[in-house]
Amino acid sequence: MQLLGEAGAGNDAAPGLSQQIHGQIKARILQAQLAPGARLPTSRALAQALAVSRNTVLRAYEQLESEGFIRSRMGAGSYVSDLAAPSSSASPTTPSRAASPRTPDSPLWLRLQDYQPSPVVQGPGRAFRHGLPALDLFPHALWSRLQARFWRAQARPGPRASLSYEDAAGLPRLRELIAGYLSHSRGLHCRADQVLVTAGSQQAIAMAALALLRSGDRVGMESPGYRAAAAALGLSGAQVLPVPLDGQGLRIGSLQALGRLRLVYTTPSHQYPTGVVMSAQRRLELLAWARQNDAYVLEDDYDGEYRFSGVPLAPLASLEGESDARTLYVGSFSKLLFPGLRLGYLVAPAAWLPTLARLRSVLDRQASIADQAVLAEFMAEGHFLRHVRRMRRAARERRDALLQAWAQELLPLHPQHRLQPVPAGLQAFLPLADRTEETRLAERARRAGIELGALAQMGGLPAHSQQAGLVLGFASVPTAEIAPAVRALAQAWRDGSS
Amino acid sequence: MQLLGEAGAGNDAAPGLSQQIHGQIKARILQAQLAPGARLPTSRALAQALAVSRNTVLRAYEQLESEGFIRSRMGAGSYVSDLAAPSSSASPTTPSRAASPRTPDSPLWLRLQDYQPSPVVQGPGRAFRHGLPALDLFPHALWSRLQARFWRAQARPGPRASLSYEDAAGLPRLRELIAGYLSHSRGLHCRADQVLVTAGSQQAIAMAALALLRSGDRVGMESPGYRAAAAALGLSGAQVLPVPLDGQGLRIGSLQALGRLRLVYTTPSHQYPTGVVMSAQRRLELLAWARQNDAYVLEDDYDGEYRFSGVPLAPLASLEGESDARTLYVGSFSKLLFPGLRLGYLVAPAAWLPTLARLRSVLDRQASIADQAVLAEFMAEGHFLRHVRRMRRAARERRDALLQAWAQELLPLHPQHRLQPVPAGLQAFLPLADRTEETRLAERARRAGIELGALAQMGGLPAHSQQAGLVLGFASVPTAEIAPAVRALAQAWRDGSS
Repeated sequence: MQLLGEAGAGNDAAPGLSQQIHGQIKARILQAQLAPGARLPTSRALAQALAVSRNTVLRAYEQLESEGFIRSRMGAGSYVSDLAAPSSSASPTTPSRAASPRTPDSPLWLRLQDYQPSPVVQGPGRAFRHGLPALDLFPHALWSRLQARFWRAQARPGPRASLSYEDAAGLPRLRELIAGYLSHSRGLHCRADQVLVTAGSQQAIAMAALALLRSGDRVGMESPGYRAAAAALGLSGAQVLPVPLDGQGLRIGSLQALGRLRLVYTTPSHQYPTGVVMSAQRRLELLAWARQNDAYVLEDDYDGEYRFSGVPLAPLASLEGESDARTLYVGSFSKLLFPGLRLGYLVAPAAWLPTLARLRSVLDRQASIADQAVLAEFMAEGHFLRHVRRMRRAARERRDALLQAWAQELLPLHPQHRLQPVPAGLQAFLPLADRTEETRLAERARRAGIELGALAQMGGLPAHSQQAGLVLGFASVPTAEIAPAVRALAQAWRDGSS
Repeated sequence: MQLLGEAGAGNDAAPGLSQQIHGQIKARILQAQLAPGARLPTSRALAQALAVSRNTVLRAYEQLESEGFIRSRMGAGSYVSDLAAPSSSASPTTPSRAASPRTPDSPLWLRLQDYQPSPVVQGPGRAFRHGLPALDLFPHALWSRLQARFWRAQARPGPRASLSYEDAAGLPRLRELIAGYLSHSRGLHCRADQVLVTAGSQQAIAMAALALLRSGDRVGMESPGYRAAAAALGLSGAQVLPVPLDGQGLRIGSLQALGRLRLVYTTPSHQYPTGVVMSAQRRLELLAWARQNDAYVLEDDYDGEYRFSGVPLAPLASLEGESDARTLYVGSFSKLLFPGLRLGYLVAPAAWLPTLARLRSVLDRQASIADQAVLAEFMAEGHFLRHVRRMRRAARERRDALLQAWAQELLPLHPQHRLQPVPAGLQAFLPLADRTEETRLAERARRAGIELGALAQMGGLPAHSQQAGLVLGFASVPTAEIAPAVRALAQAWRDGSS
């Protein structure tokens, strides 16, 4: 009996050897190469054949017996059991349909087949990767010091942040600090008991969708829009319908035509991905519509801090009283600190928080405790506000560099490619005539080493894709690299135009 | 006009002042204390009245105008707009039903009302808090050093772990290390492309439930069982049905009576909370049942590493070939490192991983990047295996201390209160006659400063609650504190017995 394969066992320590022998015999039993009733070699014989100690073989046999694969009769050797064989290979000549694993066929599983998340791109930010802030400005050393302080406190006796299960809604101190920040900086007056700490804005959207929607509900969403949000809104089986945009944002007049909507998802501060800022008038109309239609508004303020000029408009959520709030407000630290942090928040009526916290505890219990504690320190000591200001300055500088280079380097060669205004945010939008053009230009850029977001890859659900265009993230690209990248882009697009 | 409340504005800096003025006027407009058409004081008059600079008032008026709350006519002053008012308070004398926010009524929202997660207990572990490992043995300093190293690497140029969006399935290196650990230590041979890193075992269970189940599906679950798992299994609207246990684990014979089941949830290594270890025979029977009934098995191996004697039994997932796998395997780092880490994993057929990763990206994109990277280092350098051995030794020592103190201090006074055997895990189980007894004993212990888990608070769904008993977590309690706690418990139970 050839028990050990080419990998052999000779180089391994004794426990590993025993495990290998056990695994090989088990595999042969499961594959019916050792039939029920078959007699195994004696431990002495097998030990000799494999040049291992007899104890090594005995350990393997003992485990096989405790698992029910073999029976040992005192003095009579070890035999393969005739237990109900769980493997389909037990009868390899008659493969039955039930033998192969059931491919999942839940409605969500099937919907997920259509969902193509944005591809993950590795390495430091290149021009013009979108969705990233100025990661090069993150204060690594400071963050690391705060982390070290957290762990030193763990080693000391006395009261301390716990490493254990905590409030699913988030560390109370962090919720206080977020509420304070929103009041002070975003004009959104809320209390800590309205704030649920989430694993980034994505979880906030997913939780709102799971909590509020039921299968068959109709949901309106800006189109083009944020594809990952569309997928999250569909988690409960809701039908996500596109709502067109104009220069003032989501078109309220189009909502009635979609039938009874339970929720509308919007990014009013800086529409993703086109960059339109929803007008004040439109904001009030949307809230009035929600009241009249007994619907919710999910306001995703993913990069509202990045406003470069003019007066910041009040978030939708700040235009309502708490007692008649229809707006759930979603915020994120991904665009202010770094996306890998996975911390964001949902602001909701206080009366809803206990149920939302229960949902969080069912989904994944709570956010990473060290990340929460370190972020709270970072905010409490004033580093956060300073960092936000630094990030806004950097994004404005990089936007200006992009617009200037675009005007000087690209427009003279391609006068038809005008960027939309960029009053806010981390990316610029270039509308295009059609998807063919979009694919062609993105592909030429790619070959020249420039990353561009194509609407087909990022905007809303596939079925929504009417518009065409390219997204250029500028915030993560150091200023000095921007003009050369625009030149390269202008050249790449020119070379191919024939 | 009294614009500023008692809090006043005098102590604040100019931008804060301007925001306060803006906020106060906005609130009055939304509450209809300032009616449409009303004229605001001139900026000069208001500035004088509040003793602030005129620019401060002008900034507030400018923001109110950009938000659409007021209109300014050159030379004629500022007036409250008559926009569609979003607030119900706009017409305070006729409160309409639609004005109050719609209380969510989705099926999940309603089910969550019945779900009572285990209460969060603060502070360092007391005897006999359950669900926690020996947190006092966690190598804080080492973990902190690895974290500092991660952040130093971020500051250096060149290739490094990214702070950005990464593979939703988890860092490739961490998935490799988990697969290696499972092969080596748990006898579960799998590849990295079968491993999905999750936010603890809770997310693994929730994801399996969302991905595999549909509304109305029937799911079997050990009873008593892990309440948070029951809640997660119900996320998609599946019906969770109790399956009784005997001394060998989940009773296979009872499954048929429950009708067509799509999935069975089980904790075979160490049943939660009773501590029964599923026999080898029963394991094979369960897999055979799953094949015959075209059902999935969800194996939650939350504390399988804590086996104190005998040969460890192979996980269910290791008894199948990948091509005919019906078992999804759930593992966690919460009981080996610390619960606040929020890292665990799901092992599934490789063909399912792309869809599961997509689901993860929809739910919350990925796990905390620094936590993943530091855990990978911790494993790669061998610290993890050493720590697991140290934790197992500590748990065994603390179990022995509990059993010894129980025999010496408690049984002589309360001979009817015999603990179940504790071959594995972090807690002991004391079966009781009924819920009255359970409540009585837990309450007396609480008054004596001893924490006990009552089955009514932790086992399965409320409707499942047939058995009664108490759970004693021993692993998080330093050995020296165990005997005194048992003495206190014996005394507390005695004092009340009359």
